[in-house]
Amino acid sequence: MMNPSSSILLTDLYQLTMLQGYFEQEMFDTAVFEFFVRKLPPQRNFLMAAGLEQTLDFLENLHFTPEELDWLSASRHFSNAFVDYLAGLHFTGDVHAMPEGTIFFPNEPILRITAPLPQAQLVETRLINLLHFQTLIASKAARSVLAAPGKLLIDFGLRRAHGAEAGLLAARAGYIAGLNGTSTTLAGPLFDIPVYGTMAHSFVQAHEDEETAFEHFARAQPDNVVLLIDTYDTEIAAQKVVALAPRLREQGIAIKAVRLDSGDLAEHARRVRHILDEGGLREVHIFASGNLDEYALQAFNAAHAPIDGFGIGTHLDTSADAPHLDCAYKLQEYAGRARRKRSEGKATWPGRKQVYRIYDDNGRFAGDTLTLEGDPCAGETLIQPIMCNGQRLAPRPKLSETRRHASTQLARLPEPLHGLTSAPGYTVTVSQALHELATEVDRQHFTP
Amino acid sequence: MMNPSSSILLTDLYQLTMLQGYFEQEMFDTAVFEFFVRKLPPQRNFLMAAGLEQTLDFLENLHFTPEELDWLSASRHFSNAFVDYLAGLHFTGDVHAMPEGTIFFPNEPILRITAPLPQAQLVETRLINLLHFQTLIASKAARSVLAAPGKLLIDFGLRRAHGAEAGLLAARAGYIAGLNGTSTTLAGPLFDIPVYGTMAHSFVQAHEDEETAFEHFARAQPDNVVLLIDTYDTEIAAQKVVALAPRLREQGIAIKAVRLDSGDLAEHARRVRHILDEGGLREVHIFASGNLDEYALQAFNAAHAPIDGFGIGTHLDTSADAPHLDCAYKLQEYAGRARRKRSEGKATWPGRKQVYRIYDDNGRFAGDTLTLEGDPCAGETLIQPIMCNGQRLAPRPKLSETRRHASTQLARLPEPLHGLTSAPGYTVTVSQALHELATEVDRQHFTP
Repeated sequence: MMNPSSSILLTDLYQLTMLQGYFEQEMFDTAVFEFFVRKLPPQRNFLMAAGLEQTLDFLENLHFTPEELDWLSASRHFSNAFVDYLAGLHFTGDVHAMPEGTIFFPNEPILRITAPLPQAQLVETRLINLLHFQTLIASKAARSVLAAPGKLLIDFGLRRAHGAEAGLLAARAGYIAGLNGTSTTLAGPLFDIPVYGTMAHSFVQAHEDEETAFEHFARAQPDNVVLLIDTYDTEIAAQKVVALAPRLREQGIAIKAVRLDSGDLAEHARRVRHILDEGGLREVHIFASGNLDEYALQAFNAAHAPIDGFGIGTHLDTSADAPHLDCAYKLQEYAGRARRKRSEGKATWPGRKQVYRIYDDNGRFAGDTLTLEGDPCAGETLIQPIMCNGQRLAPRPKLSETRRHASTQLARLPEPLHGLTSAPGYTVTVSQALHELATEVDRQHFTP
Repeated sequence: MMNPSSSILLTDLYQLTMLQGYFEQEMFDTAVFEFFVRKLPPQRNFLMAAGLEQTLDFLENLHFTPEELDWLSASRHFSNAFVDYLAGLHFTGDVHAMPEGTIFFPNEPILRITAPLPQAQLVETRLINLLHFQTLIASKAARSVLAAPGKLLIDFGLRRAHGAEAGLLAARAGYIAGLNGTSTTLAGPLFDIPVYGTMAHSFVQAHEDEETAFEHFARAQPDNVVLLIDTYDTEIAAQKVVALAPRLREQGIAIKAVRLDSGDLAEHARRVRHILDEGGLREVHIFASGNLDEYALQAFNAAHAPIDGFGIGTHLDTSADAPHLDCAYKLQEYAGRARRKRSEGKATWPGRKQVYRIYDDNGRFAGDTLTLEGDPCAGETLIQPIMCNGQRLAPRPKLSETRRHASTQLARLPEPLHGLTSAPGYTVTVSQALHELATEVDRQHFTP
C-alpha cells in the first residue's frame, strides 16, 4: 500500500507532467517560489502562519518508492528515462519562512523555496495543502483567544474536521494560537498537546437514571469529574449534582465542573450557577459547548455569562465562516531572472522578497514593508533562513515555544485588529524597489 | 510512531473516559447507535451517503497497539485493569447502512452500529469523522453534476482541501457523485479513479516565452496536450496555439484542449472559441478552472458559454458554502431498551430504524417513511445489513458500481430538488410506531 498521508503521489498530476517537460528540456536551474495569501477573507483582520514544521517534514522525506514509480510507469504518461530520474529525486533546496505563530498580512510571503526547478515545482500541492490548512485554523482559533480572554478553550472538532489529518492538525494549529488543549487523544502523544475529555450523552442514556450515571463516572474518573447535565433537563440535573456532591466528598471525590451542551447556554449557565452556589458548590466550574464559535464567545463575554470554559469544535476545525484562504505558491524567479504572472486579478510581485515590520512605542505592530531581499528597510525582518541544502538549520522548536511566540504576536497586534468584524486595514507598503522590478519584468517580457 | 491516519487514538478522549466507566460497571450489553443528519444546510435539497467503505475498514482494523496502551497507562487517566481490557478489544458488532451513493434526507439514519456498548461507543468520533466528510463532499459534488450536464468535471481541490485525507477522500466522494476524475495523483492507485493533469502557470513562466513553453509541453505529453493560456494575455495565447498547431501536427501531435483560469471565463471562452474556430481548431476543447463552484457552472450553462469541461477545486473540497453538516451518532437502544436524548433542539427518535421509499410512475422518489425495524411499510428498504459479528457480508463493491448507483439515484431525484437553491422539502413521514415508542420512552424515563 502507498501511504495515504505521506506518499509523494499526494500531488496534482500536473506537477509530474510538467516535471517531464522540465526533464526533457534539462530545465534544472534554480527556481524561487513563494507562498502567500492574496487577500483576507471578509471576516479576518490578520492571519497567523502555521504548518511550517509539517512542510519541513514533507520536504525532508520527499522520495518516490518503487511501488509509486511502478504505478507512474504503468500509467503511460511518462517515459522510462523520466521515471528513472524521479527514482533519485530528493529535496536539496533552501527554505526561508516566517516562524509559526507569526501574524502576517496579504501579499507577504510566509515561505520561500529556492531549489532546482523540478524539486520546487513538485512540492507545490502538498506544501500548499499543509500551510493553507494550519494557517487557516490558527487564524480562526486566534479570534476565539481574543474574544474570550481568561477562559479555558478546548478544541472539540475532530468528528466534523475534514478527515483525520485535519482533526490532528487543527488541534495543533489551535494550540499554537492559544487554545488550552484538545479532545483529540492522538494530539497528546503526537504533539504533546494537553488532552481533555469527560462524558457524552450516551453515557447518561445508557444508565437507567442520570444520578447513577454521574456517580459511576465520578468513580471511574475521580480526578476529572466533569458532568454533562443537559441530556434531559439541565436545571434538574444541576440539582442532582448538588445532591450527589456530599456523597462523593465522603469518598474523597470533588466535582470539578458541569458541562452544558444545548439550549440558551448563557441563560442555563446563570440558573445552574445559582443552583450550584445555593448548594454550596461555588468551586464547581461551568463549561459550555455546542456549535460555538468566536462570535458566540464574544456574546457570552459581553453578557457576563457565568461560563468558565468552552469547547469549540466544528466551527473551529472547519473554519466555518471562511473555510479556505485565497493563497498561492508562485514562481518568482528562475535561472537568475525574476518572473511574474500577470493573469487578471492574480498578478504577483516578482523576485525574492523580505518583510520588514516596525513597532510603535507600546511595542505594537505599526506597519510592514514588502520588498526585495537585500533591499535594506527599517524594522525587523520576518522571513528567516530555515533549511539549507535540504537540511534544517536548527532543531525542531518545541510547540510550547511556538505557542509563546504566537501569544506575543497577539499581544503586539494593534487593538483595532482584535475585533471579529472587518477593521480598517493594516498598512503593508510595497517598496519602490519591488515596483521597479515588476515594471522591469513586464518590459522584458512584452518587448523581448 | 503512532499512525496519524489509522491510530485508534484518533478519537475524543471522552470515549475512553466513558469506556472506563462502562468497564468498571460491567456495562457490556448490546448498544444500538445510529448516524444521521439533523437538518439540511440552507443551500441543500438532499444529501448523498458516502464514507461507508472507509468506516468498515476502520471497524475491521480496530485495535490498540502496545505503544498506544503504554501512552494511555502513562497518562494516568486509566486503571491498569482497564488498559488490559483495551488490549483485547476488537469490533465484533453488526453494521446496517444505506449503500454509498444513496440519496437521503434529515433524520434518516444512514448507518447503524449494533455492538457491545464499549465498542459501539469507542468508534463514535472516527466514524462521524469519516461519514460526515465524504457525505458532505458527495452531496456538494452532486450539485455540480446536476448543474453542468454533459460537461467533463474534474476535482482540482487537493491543495486547499483540509489536509491529505480530505483531499484523497474528496476525490473519492466526488467521483462517486459523478465527477469524471481528479487531479490528485494518489487517488489513481488507491481508488482507481481517473487522474487528470496538464500544466500550471509556473511552467509557462519558467520558459523565456509562452510559445516555447507550449511546444515543450506538447512534446513531453503528446497524448495529453492541454495548454494553459491565461498566464499573460488569454487571446494572444490562443493565437499562439493556432500558430503552433500545424507545426505539432507535422510531428503527429494533436492539441486536445486549452485551459482558462482567470478573468471573465465565459467571455474569454467565447473569444477563444472564435480564435480557435477561425484557425481551424474546431476540435480543440476549452476547459476552465479558477474558483469555480456549482453556481458558476449553472451560470455558464445558462449563458451557453462554449466551455467543455471544468476543474472544480477549493469550493468542492471544502464544501465552501456549507463546510459541515449537523450530524450525530446517537444511542437509540441499550440492553434491549429504547433510549432517547431530549436535549433542547436535539431530541432524537429512539429504537432501531428503517427507511422505506416509494416511487412515482416515472420511477422518481415519491416519499420516505421513517419507522422501526420490523414495522412493515410500503416501499423499498434503504438500510441493509453490511457487517455481521465484525465481518463484511459481501466483498467490497467496485467504486464504478457505487458511482453507477449514485447516478441512478440522481436520475430518480424529483426535479424540484435538482435546483441549487432551497426547494419545498421532500416528504419524510415519521411512522405511528415511532411516535408511540418515543412517547413510551419519555413516559418510562419521567415516571420510573
